[in-house]
Amino acid sequence: MQPDDTPELRALYEGFEAMHLMPLWTQLGDLMPRHPKPKAVPHVWKWADLLPLAQTSGDLVPVGRGGERRAIGLANPGLGGHAYVSPTLWAAIQYLGPRETAPEHRHAQNAFRFVVEGEGVWTVVNGDPVRMSRGDLLLTPGWHFHGHHNDTDKPMAWIDGLDIPFAQQNDVGFFEFGSDRVTDYATPRFSRGERLWCHPGLRPLSGLRDTVASPIGAYRWEHTDRALTEQLLLEEEGQPATVEQGHAAIRYVNPTTGGDVMSTIRCEFHRLRAGTDTPPRRDVGSTVFQVFDGKGAAVIGGVTHKLDIGDIFVIPSWIPWSLQAETQFDLFRFSDAPIMERLNFMRSHVEMAET
Amino acid sequence: MQPDDTPELRALYEGFEAMHLMPLWTQLGDLMPRHPKPKAVPHVWKWADLLPLAQTSGDLVPVGRGGERRAIGLANPGLGGHAYVSPTLWAAIQYLGPRETAPEHRHAQNAFRFVVEGEGVWTVVNGDPVRMSRGDLLLTPGWHFHGHHNDTDKPMAWIDGLDIPFAQQNDVGFFEFGSDRVTDYATPRFSRGERLWCHPGLRPLSGLRDTVASPIGAYRWEHTDRALTEQLLLEEEGQPATVEQGHAAIRYVNPTTGGDVMSTIRCEFHRLRAGTDTPPRRDVGSTVFQVFDGKGAAVIGGVTHKLDIGDIFVIPSWIPWSLQAETQFDLFRFSDAPIMERLNFMRSHVEMAET
Amino acid sequence: MQPDDTPELRALYEGFEAMHLMPLWTQLGDLMPRHPKPKAVPHVWKWADLLPLAQTSGDLVPVGRGGERRAIGLANPGLGGHAYVSPTLWAAIQYLGPRETAPEHRHAQNAFRFVVEGEGVWTVVNGDPVRMSRGDLLLTPGWHFHGHHNDTDKPMAWIDGLDIPFAQQNDVGFFEFGSDRVTDYATPRFSRGERLWCHPGLRPLSGLRDTVASPIGAYRWEHTDRALTEQLLLEEEGQPATVEQGHAAIRYVNPTTGGDVMSTIRCEFHRLRAGTDTPPRRDVGSTVFQVFDGKGAAVIGGVTHKLDIGDIFVIPSWIPWSLQAETQFDLFRFSDAPIMERLNFMRSHVEMAET
Amino acid sequence: MQPDDTPELRALYEGFEAMHLMPLWTQLGDLMPRHPKPKAVPHVWKWADLLPLAQTSGDLVPVGRGGERRAIGLANPGLGGHAYVSPTLWAAIQYLGPRETAPEHRHAQNAFRFVVEGEGVWTVVNGDPVRMSRGDLLLTPGWHFHGHHNDTDKPMAWIDGLDIPFAQQNDVGFFEFGSDRVTDYATPRFSRGERLWCHPGLRPLSGLRDTVASPIGAYRWEHTDRALTEQLLLEEEGQPATVEQGHAAIRYVNPTTGGDVMSTIRCEFHRLRAGTDTPPRRDVGSTVFQVFDGKGAAVIGGVTHKLDIGDIFVIPSWIPWSLQAETQFDLFRFSDAPIMERLNFMRSHVEMAET
Repeated sequence: MQPDDTPELRALYEGFEAMHLMPLWTQLGDLMPRHPKPKAVPHVWKWADLLPLAQTSGDLVPVGRGGERRAIGLANPGLGGHAYVSPTLWAAIQYLGPRETAPEHRHAQNAFRFVVEGEGVWTVVNGDPVRMSRGDLLLTPGWHFHGHHNDTDKPMAWIDGLDIPFAQQNDVGFFEFGSDRVTDYATPRFSRGERLWCHPGLRPLSGLRDTVASPIGAYRWEHTDRALTEQLLLEEEGQPATVEQGHAAIRYVNPTTGGDVMSTIRCEFHRLRAGTDTPPRRDVGSTVFQVFDGKGAAVIGGVTHKLDIGDIFVIPSWIPWSLQAETQFDLFRFSDAPIMERLNFMRSHVEMAET
Repeated sequence: MQPDDTPELRALYEGFEAMHLMPLWTQLGDLMPRHPKPKAVPHVWKWADLLPLAQTSGDLVPVGRGGERRAIGLANPGLGGHAYVSPTLWAAIQYLGPRETAPEHRHAQNAFRFVVEGEGVWTVVNGDPVRMSRGDLLLTPGWHFHGHHNDTDKPMAWIDGLDIPFAQQNDVGFFEFGSDRVTDYATPRFSRGERLWCHPGLRPLSGLRDTVASPIGAYRWEHTDRALTEQLLLEEEGQPATVEQGHAAIRYVNPTTGGDVMSTIRCEFHRLRAGTDTPPRRDVGSTVFQVFDGKGAAVIGGVTHKLDIGDIFVIPSWIPWSLQAETQFDLFRFSDAPIMERLNFMRSHVEMAET
Repeated sequence: MQPDDTPELRALYEGFEAMHLMPLWTQLGDLMPRHPKPKAVPHVWKWADLLPLAQTSGDLVPVGRGGERRAIGLANPGLGGHAYVSPTLWAAIQYLGPRETAPEHRHAQNAFRFVVEGEGVWTVVNGDPVRMSRGDLLLTPGWHFHGHHNDTDKPMAWIDGLDIPFAQQNDVGFFEFGSDRVTDYATPRFSRGERLWCHPGLRPLSGLRDTVASPIGAYRWEHTDRALTEQLLLEEEGQPATVEQGHAAIRYVNPTTGGDVMSTIRCEFHRLRAGTDTPPRRDVGSTVFQVFDGKGAAVIGGVTHKLDIGDIFVIPSWIPWSLQAETQFDLFRFSDAPIMERLNFMRSHVEMAET
Repeated sequence: MQPDDTPELRALYEGFEAMHLMPLWTQLGDLMPRHPKPKAVPHVWKWADLLPLAQTSGDLVPVGRGGERRAIGLANPGLGGHAYVSPTLWAAIQYLGPRETAPEHRHAQNAFRFVVEGEGVWTVVNGDPVRMSRGDLLLTPGWHFHGHHNDTDKPMAWIDGLDIPFAQQNDVGFFEFGSDRVTDYATPRFSRGERLWCHPGLRPLSGLRDTVASPIGAYRWEHTDRALTEQLLLEEEGQPATVEQGHAAIRYVNPTTGGDVMSTIRCEFHRLRAGTDTPPRRDVGSTVFQVFDGKGAAVIGGVTHKLDIGDIFVIPSWIPWSLQAETQFDLFRFSDAPIMERLNFMRSHVEMAET
């Protein structure tokens, strides 16, 4: 239902252009689609590809002030050459060689690291050295100074997640350099934040003010693993504990509120029993998974992707997806769900099982 | 601090590209600037330019199903040909000819209208006919059906504000067609929402559940004007009432919470006494003003723009700005501040007056 | 199921007494009844009785520093000689003669006044003179200085509501004398709080911090009356607006939150169409009504009480009650519901209509 | 400033009495004191007195349906023969003989148990068997069914804390009998609630809805002890971790909100280094301590009370108090602070150290 192409209309449209105006009626479907039509596409990055490239970077690219981090961003093929895994999220593999230090800085962007393998690096967050080990989730919330150092003779790689694209798109980013070296080279087993906060259901009286981001710097694998194990055991005992049959899951939370660890990023860990297929679902917002253990597949937008340990995949907004566990299947997950929920844009649709 | 350009490095970078990867170290400054560096630029659209183009559109472009609205979007010159007034916000002039109807639809995007001149149109929101008159703010929150009809023999123009760019960028949009005609052609002076909710400090017992968006469909000019008048009178009486000397302002709020009218858009009205200059300030997030009455200027990023009634201007994130009132100066304002605040990205900086 | 009365048992019980101990097993039913068994009883105080006694007090009892107020408390017959209308609430008739002043003081207890007839008194709350007229609700939240003065040659009476019994029982009360005279004898039509806050849906930018109690000092009858009138008109038009058929009601709220006007006291106004009977209901907590206009009855605990203008009645916790409107029937109501809700003790039971 | 005692005044006062009215001016100071003047008094109950009486009760008093619990309430000497430790709180020693069962019931009142010595009893809360061991805090929030059984050949005693006086005074109590025997005689080391919820910073996806009371049924001593130990170690390392020098403390919280475990009762555990004296303070509301370990004293209202393990003491509202640690000194604490805070009555005053 567009107007006839007349000289008058052309003159009108030229007037629009001269005045920095654009009509709605010529572009309504693009601007306001019937449902989300993301430019981002589903994609899988294989750990077997990522790790060698990171290792080669370790050989060729120094880490230090200026470049700041030896991090390699996953660039969604649909997002036109930006290092964005989705419109809101950044995901990267970061690599630190033996005895290397990545200097301290801070930024408004929220960040976390998740360790799929290896150990030996400490991240120093606002002066608190935090050990990084397999299965751990480490937080560096917005405007916290942080740097990393490798205390060993072996390199280490992990993934970083941030809200860089969201911050970039919405012009909210601030950045500041800190110390060229990390401010504390101690290598304690537990960070001060953990020692103060990681006691279930107990809150220090010195920490009664709620915080925007979680005061826990490290969520340890041993706790995550035990929580998931208990859920599956409880399910076997006939107790309500899992999200759905064969599907255990935890959300990492801020103990001062019970809510998400950071304002823009949700972090979760999912465990499927061998043989479990999750029902197909769609959600508003984008999500990224990394396989932590086991073998299985993800069906995303109707396409089945076989998955191995370390593989990372992204599901853009409103694309249907499900998981299939060949063995017990462990996956770390992060998403922009806090943005969607806080702004009341969240919608989800879960398909009923055929019976 | 970039690595040397060697064949090995080139091979590495080619490997990145093949695998849909991009290094952080080559683009850090762009991805994580020291402070927000918006692509959007400050810009003023003159009402004297906008209105004639809207009138010509009224002659040449039909309004109806498909195009949906005779709305002309303000395209920020820095945003590369998108009809976005800022990365988050849409602003448009909409025009409805005598006896015309814009059909009903609904969308996840939040919308409002503000009327700088004219009358005679009713917007029908979820079946409730809402009169649109000079100085009124009218809400159509996300997923509310709405259409408009002009009950008179004169055309009418107004501005629309929405979160279309934010919804587009983050893939949260849903859209549904409704009735081709509005569902109620009645032209009551007050909408049902106003009759139920517009009694100061009184909440209907039938409406005890808090709502995501304000249940008030129309914020009338007479209330806004009176509130601002009282603030300036109280200031004259030596009472605390204004934001700063000579500067009265109200925020339109959701009476069920006292918070913003919608999840993503803040609406305010500001009145300056003649001769008042506001102190320069910067804020994270983008904001749009429309001059409602009086004469004055805006100093944005160091450039002074003279302003007349109806003129619309945008201030991108972290650009310094101030207002200067030649006469009593009335301005409607909307912004994405609820997004920034809910996600904890808000920062503001107000310059101290020189003494 | 009590133990046998043996010498050993008596010795045990004497041991308890000596050590300030008491067994649970001898008193369980009293301490933990099957449902609330209030000592307070339903009771009606007739305005025709109250007003003459208040007037005689005006003749015999001075008002001034020390006694502070010429207020006569309604003493629930079940509460053993305390001036408590219920275990949580205080209700009194207060009387101020021509040109009299009740001196300023402040206390932790929350207070309001409601005016069933008369005019001419201003209450000065934290220095802000607030006119008191028929149908108005006036707030003096905890720790606000307040005094009253009668600007006319006629006496005036009204009711006070406070949380004195709750404060007394739980040892939370503080009290401080202020000025012996009120600090401002001006008699403006509208208080400063109203001028700043009583614009529907509009919040002053100078008042963005939420307050524990409402910043509105006076809820005017004209607004209350209009809100109730509109609800009944909307009901006639077939629109959802009333609580139930023929029953309009508003809650007075804090505009900064949409919640109750004060932390411990809920205030509402109810209007029944002539002929309306409300369904019997029970609620945890106690509530007090004053008839403002019209004729009707209250059925409380199975007993029907005929009611005239000004009559005050109390309904203790979990006692069934309903209202019957002979004419259009207007009632002001206050209760301790915020206490019950904030502490998660609230329960309600509404009987279904017989069909 | 009372009126002259005249025949007219006597007639007026007789009129008041006949009409169930009482003047404010004769009782203002009692009703509205300058600061809280609690009837409750500070008092210490010695464990050496309590335990033998409980043991004798075990010999003489059966436990079963009707009496429900072999619990002996601490009756504040100032509260006139009520088994109330304060106007809001109930504290009791409960005793269960070998192989005994206390039958299941539920009530609106919130309850917890704290174990100062012994083991062998399981409390079954909504069907979930919860082990009770030394140093553990066990919750039975309002309207949860619960019963206890002793699985051993030794008796066990512990303390109960409830909000019985508050519920009684405000008429909010409901009570319902459940199973005469507990519904599950299993004796697992960890309850299902713990297995699901006691993983620091991890929330089960099956438990995303916030709960009024904590879903954790048992807060184990090993966690409490470790948290306090870490606080003191961090303090030694020069890190902020304790409330004040030498004073470590945790609050037991609801992991779904980070707030108090139940709506009316706050539970905390405090540990003082040997030699630590806390600064004198006053708080609105009443609090109860039980010495868990070590030796020390409490100075309450100017009187010093020497304390041994198991001793229980109460501090009424606004009475000054401080603690003195002779050895490392461990104390469990509960209070009505959530009531005071939720209703905005909380005030505290801490005396500055003399220098």
